[in-house]
Amino acid sequence: MKYELYYWPTIQGRGEFVRLALEDACADYVDVARLPEGSGGGEAALLQWLEKPPVGHASFAPPFLKAGRNLIGQTANILLFLGPRLGLTPGDESGRLWTHQLQLTITDLVAEIHDLHHPIASSLYYDDQRDEAKRRSAHLRRERLPKYLGWFERVLTENRRGRQRCLVGSAVTYADLSLFQIVAGLRYALPRTLRRLEGELPLCMDLHDRIAARPNVAAYLASPRRIPFNNDGLFRHYPELDA
Amino acid sequence: MKYELYYWPTIQGRGEFVRLALEDACADYVDVARLPEGSGGGEAALLQWLEKPPVGHASFAPPFLKAGRNLIGQTANILLFLGPRLGLTPGDESGRLWTHQLQLTITDLVAEIHDLHHPIASSLYYDDQRDEAKRRSAHLRRERLPKYLGWFERVLTENRRGRQRCLVGSAVTYADLSLFQIVAGLRYALPRTLRRLEGELPLCMDLHDRIAARPNVAAYLASPRRIPFNNDGLFRHYPELDA
Repeated sequence: MKYELYYWPTIQGRGEFVRLALEDACADYVDVARLPEGSGGGEAALLQWLEKPPVGHASFAPPFLKAGRNLIGQTANILLFLGPRLGLTPGDESGRLWTHQLQLTITDLVAEIHDLHHPIASSLYYDDQRDEAKRRSAHLRRERLPKYLGWFERVLTENRRGRQRCLVGSAVTYADLSLFQIVAGLRYALPRTLRRLEGELPLCMDLHDRIAARPNVAAYLASPRRIPFNNDGLFRHYPELDA
Repeated sequence: MKYELYYWPTIQGRGEFVRLALEDACADYVDVARLPEGSGGGEAALLQWLEKPPVGHASFAPPFLKAGRNLIGQTANILLFLGPRLGLTPGDESGRLWTHQLQLTITDLVAEIHDLHHPIASSLYYDDQRDEAKRRSAHLRRERLPKYLGWFERVLTENRRGRQRCLVGSAVTYADLSLFQIVAGLRYALPRTLRRLEGELPLCMDLHDRIAARPNVAAYLASPRRIPFNNDGLFRHYPELDA
């Protein structure tokens, strides 16, 4: 099946968790809003499908994925759908639920990372909420990031199946790809903080490196399809938030 | 199967979305932390299961549900698991994914409602972040709540199946129960704001009333099992945030 991904064309954002799964599995997909407007792409296409999709149900926000007559929104829900189709989730219900639980915990972390630079409102510029962002960032750095990443480190520690450690069972799932993206994004956004935490997170850091080295992921990261991190996306580098 | 729910014993919080599903279906369950400590309940039991569960995987945070040898965390994931078992989700994959997408959008809204009174850090008292909360609340009232609730109103408008409108198909799902809880909670937390918005949300308000009148839900709401709303939970009433 040919998948159509709808997401903002100039940022990694939440869509990147879906892009990574599609790329790792060499899935046949098109990143619609990154096509030229003349070929039915651009933000115009994204907004039109968000407002009045020709098939399926309108989503609250991007990303969403067209798969045949299905239109599926919410990042974690898209991965729940793609997981068995791309071989990125265990075959049993118990393993699938655990993988999804890990993804939903990443969803929570992503919301906290977003609100690091937008603690008051998404509709305001960063400069209009910089003081609140500084205050929030201190708590994120000292309390929330160590708690979240420490929990993922514990999950990796307790899962001793397979020769190469991953979060669930003995094969890579979409949750591993997403944890890679969290580490990569935090290294861009909060490099000083990450350097301080890395010593306590050897398995998370090792997982990041092994995912980055998977042939399809490595090819993707080196390609123009990987949008560079930038300060319009989810992971933003403001030095004053990384004290 | 007898389910064991683990959640904070003195608040509705995120656990309430699971309680409503179990109650509506008359499921056989025990709300473990609400049992006396002498009977293996209390917060001590919750924290012990959070830290070192005898079965399954430790969750990042409550709620989590024990079902046989499974221990399932994350509210939306618990409902994904319970949905087919309690008859609260459609039978086909497409309907199940759409129901889950609605629930994940409620999850996002819940995070925004939480941060209304905790915009800087969960670990700080409200009084220590009251100024930031006032600023954030203006955006929540004027932008985010109308956008979220307007989207659910649109979903109800576009779903014309069945005699009594619900979010998905022609039968009540866990997403309908959760939307009921959102309306009930917002009426407690932000009564002035809700009165202002209600005229634009006739189907959401009607859904709230019909869910409240379902026999098992009505019996639950009238029982001591329904913890009253209070200012320790997710939905908190601070008049200065409801201008």
